Amino acid sequence: MSSNPATVSQALHWRYATKKFAPRAIPDATWAMLRESLALTPSSYNLQPWKLIAVENSAVRERLQTHSWNQGQITGASHLVVFARRTEITEADVDRLTQQITNVRGTPPEKLAAYRQMMVSGIVKGKGAQAQKDWASCQLYIALGQLMAVAAVLAIDTCPLEGIDPAKYDEVLDLKATGYETVVACALGYRSADDHYALAKKVRFATDEVVTKV
Amino acid sequence: MSSNPATVSQALHWRYATKKFAPRAIPDATWAMLRESLALTPSSYNLQPWKLIAVENSAVRERLQTHSWNQGQITGASHLVVFARRTEITEADVDRLTQQITNVRGTPPEKLAAYRQMMVSGIVKGKGAQAQKDWASCQLYIALGQLMAVAAVLAIDTCPLEGIDPAKYDEVLDLKATGYETVVACALGYRSADDHYALAKKVRFATDEVVTKV
Repeated sequence: MSSNPATVSQALHWRYATKKFAPRAIPDATWAMLRESLALTPSSYNLQPWKLIAVENSAVRERLQTHSWNQGQITGASHLVVFARRTEITEADVDRLTQQITNVRGTPPEKLAAYRQMMVSGIVKGKGAQAQKDWASCQLYIALGQLMAVAAVLAIDTCPLEGIDPAKYDEVLDLKATGYETVVACALGYRSADDHYALAKKVRFATDEVVTKV
Repeated sequence: MSSNPATVSQALHWRYATKKFAPRAIPDATWAMLRESLALTPSSYNLQPWKLIAVENSAVRERLQTHSWNQGQITGASHLVVFARRTEITEADVDRLTQQITNVRGTPPEKLAAYRQMMVSGIVKGKGAQAQKDWASCQLYIALGQLMAVAAVLAIDTCPLEGIDPAKYDEVLDLKATGYETVVACALGYRSADDHYALAKKVRFATDEVVTKV
């Protein structure tokens, strides 16, 4: 059972970076699915170098808002997700993944040795400290892209939020000692009837200009 | 008209990084929608710092495959999209966007002056050469995430491809003089009946572990 192209196209045209949310909560079943979609995000080597933090506490949201150019979506949206990347990729991260493969599929560890070695040489030893962070950030943006797309097809509004102070977010969310650090955030909910941005024509470069053919 | 959470969840569980594609073409209408979805991808400031190249020419695909650890998806999938980022973000890029806003919405340029200035100080002057590239890469991964999610809900298989040689891709695709450079690729089509990876249980860390609550 799949959706049809026209419905999905309509959803992507409908979505926009919502500036003002209505005081209306995403139903539990829909939120559960959006939350699951985050955990299902594909990533390089399947390493999933991230934590996603759903901020429900309104006092915490208010503090985050002060570190976000006071953008109203932080407190006004039904849900707020903070995307944090792994600060470094270690052999322990690789082992955590291979262990999970063994748990889920019953694959004996020795059959994962070559895969493990690929991850160690490709990421753990193959990338410097900053390159590991950059790589983890890219993976996190797959999660952001998937979340916004999935939300759109479910008729849930989103606003990606890069205009935040990651270091302050880390403080407020107590991430310092966790090995994860804030990169970006996304607010989710329903557009307010008086968000006039909802009525503005979508601006994109022409598809033929953006997607060329060889 | 939107999809329901159960359908979307099913689609995300169904998708996997397809290793072997069947020799079956994505229908034109579906491809047109996937192509459009790339152009509709949200990005920071809406700057859309990318080119997407749909590689249809089979000789070009064969050359790319030699720069991709010989992965069969490069030639075997119905479609192959190469994701290229802008190599630097200049005032001309900002002007291209504000011009497009004026074209689409009729907004007079003087009303876009503050927005223009934000982009110039935030990205053009606010980020160094490497930071601009990293920022553009992140945006590109939103496109990748959205494409894979949208494809899944349309029952189209995908395989993201980071194991490619970007510099060689730039050569083969003649990107050198364009101001864009390869970052990642994605194959799209239909899984082969004998791709045994399709039957393997999906491995992810537990949702409760990945998505925490504050």
